[in-house]
Amino acid sequence: MTQVAIFLFDGITALDAVGPYEVLQRLPGTEVVFVGLEPGVKYTEEKNLGLEASRSIDEVPAPDIVLIPGGLGTRNLMHDERVLAWVRAAHETSRWTTSVCTGSLILAGAGLLRGVEATSHWLALDLLREQGAIPVEDRVVRRGKIITAAGVSSGIDMALQLVELESNAAVAQAVQLSIEYDPQPPHDAGSPKKAPQAVVEMVRRAAKGNSR
Amino acid sequence: MTQVAIFLFDGITALDAVGPYEVLQRLPGTEVVFVGLEPGVKYTEEKNLGLEASRSIDEVPAPDIVLIPGGLGTRNLMHDERVLAWVRAAHETSRWTTSVCTGSLILAGAGLLRGVEATSHWLALDLLREQGAIPVEDRVVRRGKIITAAGVSSGIDMALQLVELESNAAVAQAVQLSIEYDPQPPHDAGSPKKAPQAVVEMVRRAAKGNSR
Repeated sequence: MTQVAIFLFDGITALDAVGPYEVLQRLPGTEVVFVGLEPGVKYTEEKNLGLEASRSIDEVPAPDIVLIPGGLGTRNLMHDERVLAWVRAAHETSRWTTSVCTGSLILAGAGLLRGVEATSHWLALDLLREQGAIPVEDRVVRRGKIITAAGVSSGIDMALQLVELESNAAVAQAVQLSIEYDPQPPHDAGSPKKAPQAVVEMVRRAAKGNSR
Repeated sequence: MTQVAIFLFDGITALDAVGPYEVLQRLPGTEVVFVGLEPGVKYTEEKNLGLEASRSIDEVPAPDIVLIPGGLGTRNLMHDERVLAWVRAAHETSRWTTSVCTGSLILAGAGLLRGVEATSHWLALDLLREQGAIPVEDRVVRRGKIITAAGVSSGIDMALQLVELESNAAVAQAVQLSIEYDPQPPHDAGSPKKAPQAVVEMVRRAAKGNSR
């Protein structure tokens, strides 16, 4: 049985966790466990959605796959020694150590990304560099057993890659079909390279001092 | 203030709710409320993730936007008179009444889809027809003020359309950029028309009597 541990915390971006969950829990022979510093409900950045961690990180010391979502809460957690010690120890025995969005700041805080190519939300790439990583503007970046994904929705694409790494292309396609992941965004504006410059500036201003 | 009510229940598919949430809560001037038959934590089909409803449906009788996610739990709820009465009443005053995946079975159960074109998870289109709707194999189907989306991940695309309907293209692009929704699935297998036939059959067999 493959164990996936997804870390929940106050100030999380919900889709960072739930996108990969919806994919990974469909990988045959897999148990997905939501963990927190303590068990209990953790609230999103806007405090209007609670996601329940069923176990504490101490109860799940050696998952096969570690997944750290992002959100404003990472700004504190990237300095939280208990979280960092758990990530470091889990990484020693994990098959894959992964992050979505600013979850990579926690991997960096744990010292796993020193001189390593990695990604994060596009608004947080400078901060990632300050933490010693080498920012890469790809949607999913795999270096050794560390996989980092870009902002929020990118966790879905990363998780589909993980399913294929853990099984094969047919299973990954079956999971994709099960969640009917046939994206048809109304605009092609999902990255700062593609969105109109005025929109990029609008988001940058809104996020000032607040990047996720 | 625009109020969005997202209905949570035991047996939900988490991404059906959280995908649109992550989009709609970024629409300026919007409050997203998670509601349940009773307040409290509701568990996904696999029971390993709990999502918290902060209020009961009775406390939120007239949201501007109603959103009903899917999941196996809809099979019972499509006959639950308390849920159906809430949906019917909310629909009378809503600006948009929407569903993701098999959430459309609940809209159908409430009598809103009789003779109306609508969609659902591709595995549930026959069941949707039995409930009196006219199934359409589009990712997002808008007829009057009713919008139904296809399986699971399609709620993200629907929600981006909703943001544009409620504001304008630039805001929709800004939201898309904020969640970095620049999909790059490793395969083009997200619909039964695109996936290899063997994969479609694999998913169909696995889902037998179990469609979401």
